[in-house]
Amino acid sequence: MHLIDNLQYANWSEKIFRQMREGGVDAVHVTIAYHEMFRETVANFEQWNRWFEQYPDLICQARTGDDVRAAKRDGRTAIIFGFQNPSPIEDDIGLVEICHTLGARFMQLSYNNQSLLATGCYEAEDPGITRMGKQVIKEMNRVGLVVDMSHSADRSTLEAIEISERPIAITHANPAFWHPALRNKSDTVLKELAVSGGMLGFSFYPHHLKDKTDCTLNSFCEMVAKTAELMGATQIGLGSDLCQDQPDSVVEWMRVGRWSKEIDYGEGSASDAGFPPMPSWFQDNRDFGTIAAGLRAVGFSEEETAGVMGENWLRFYDQSFGKSA
Amino acid sequence: MHLIDNLQYANWSEKIFRQMREGGVDAVHVTIAYHEMFRETVANFEQWNRWFEQYPDLICQARTGDDVRAAKRDGRTAIIFGFQNPSPIEDDIGLVEICHTLGARFMQLSYNNQSLLATGCYEAEDPGITRMGKQVIKEMNRVGLVVDMSHSADRSTLEAIEISERPIAITHANPAFWHPALRNKSDTVLKELAVSGGMLGFSFYPHHLKDKTDCTLNSFCEMVAKTAELMGATQIGLGSDLCQDQPDSVVEWMRVGRWSKEIDYGEGSASDAGFPPMPSWFQDNRDFGTIAAGLRAVGFSEEETAGVMGENWLRFYDQSFGKSA
Repeated sequence: MHLIDNLQYANWSEKIFRQMREGGVDAVHVTIAYHEMFRETVANFEQWNRWFEQYPDLICQARTGDDVRAAKRDGRTAIIFGFQNPSPIEDDIGLVEICHTLGARFMQLSYNNQSLLATGCYEAEDPGITRMGKQVIKEMNRVGLVVDMSHSADRSTLEAIEISERPIAITHANPAFWHPALRNKSDTVLKELAVSGGMLGFSFYPHHLKDKTDCTLNSFCEMVAKTAELMGATQIGLGSDLCQDQPDSVVEWMRVGRWSKEIDYGEGSASDAGFPPMPSWFQDNRDFGTIAAGLRAVGFSEEETAGVMGENWLRFYDQSFGKSA
Repeated sequence: MHLIDNLQYANWSEKIFRQMREGGVDAVHVTIAYHEMFRETVANFEQWNRWFEQYPDLICQARTGDDVRAAKRDGRTAIIFGFQNPSPIEDDIGLVEICHTLGARFMQLSYNNQSLLATGCYEAEDPGITRMGKQVIKEMNRVGLVVDMSHSADRSTLEAIEISERPIAITHANPAFWHPALRNKSDTVLKELAVSGGMLGFSFYPHHLKDKTDCTLNSFCEMVAKTAELMGATQIGLGSDLCQDQPDSVVEWMRVGRWSKEIDYGEGSASDAGFPPMPSWFQDNRDFGTIAAGLRAVGFSEEETAGVMGENWLRFYDQSFGKSA
């Protein structure tokens, strides 16, 4: 079984890379841009190149599903790059292929707000995929950069599913039927996502969890089981949204970037402004065994559990990361 | 035999790509930056991506010697990217690997002037490779980006040969013994280059030729034969410096970029400011057969001729373009 977490944004360090190895994590999709423009994103690719040079026994870059398999054989954790916003491509469609060449494999079309491409989940109005958005989806399909709608609004998400000729992903979110946060997804979105061959990654971020930090493992796993009934057990995986060791200044950067001079609390509030504490059953990369046990406990078969824990993402990588046929 | 021209900077068009095919040219090292900073260079990578998409039957990108062999099998011309100046890496050593990932395989450490790394051939003083230059050569060696000293001064060139742990190249220049232009190279430089396993590419650019535009093919080929005596027939190839269809504004850009408000005529003069006409025996990519015939006529064997026409560059690509062992 390959163990894959399809979304983390930790304050990376040797400690965390070693925890990935201790936890037997074969691949992690890491966010390298929230609001960064192209040149800033390149600096983040550069930082990862230095880490790959410094820690060759722990981590390596993955561009394909086969790179993940090779990393597992070598006893390393494969790192896959993604953007939570299209800011790295600025207003230049040519940067889609450039970013893919540098290793980007997921890109959100919008992050909470309206972007040049699509609408975010906190906007009052959602006019759907823009003119540029349609062109960029086509180009992402061509080169093998996956459309991610985790922070997008419903209409934009449904249109992205429709317009994209390749399956899309919602890398980190949960179903709204379980916890009705703006970031969680409606049954309609989840069904359309599954029918089109897309993937949902379940988030462990407390604002996406029923009872937040106090959410129980059983409640979480029951939710996964209900989602499997809705979407099929092959279209779901993990996207923990682990932001380990990050200072609260980072959640402020995620929320307001440079788009506002006023603070916006996003999913938090003035009295709960920082990163919320993670649930007791998921503190870091060594806790995935607990999740797998929880899934088995609510009735998932071994094969289904392996699918949710990573095999489904691996299959999706194989289908999604190369140039279109 | 593989036919390789290791330096061109044409005003690229379908016409020129078709002439490459008519001429049986298997690979061309194309300049994509003279004075461009990183973001401008990325726009040039983007432009080539569009051409690869538009003309898939004529051209394709090459990152390795094997890509050149595959291009030949497919009946396409392989395109290899290079910079004539280190301006694309700005003051950021991390951009060396980023540019290599995007496909850059040659980078000049200086272009006529002093750079952050080395001295150009038109400076009055040459203090040698700089502190940053030493670090960048090491990084270029690590990732497989070839040091090119075509437009550099002698001391910097000799130091680059010494410091670099992998063979370097002078992609487009001729020996000064034949035509003593500032851009042409001393016997000392050529000998050290050859001893270290480096390569010289012969230029057809009139300012580098004896009698300029009126240079005869026989004079050129006799010079190649003398250089083979000096360097060995395995360390030489072609680097035509063909600037086909470029307007004279481009030679002005090459010469002054944005470093001067005053015009600098470089190898030209006020009365001869534009691109000089190419010699009658080399007008475009369809004329390489003439060169090969000229080499045979001055006594090169079939094997030596094949080496000069491309096999030597191909061997050098195999040795140079991958990560260091």
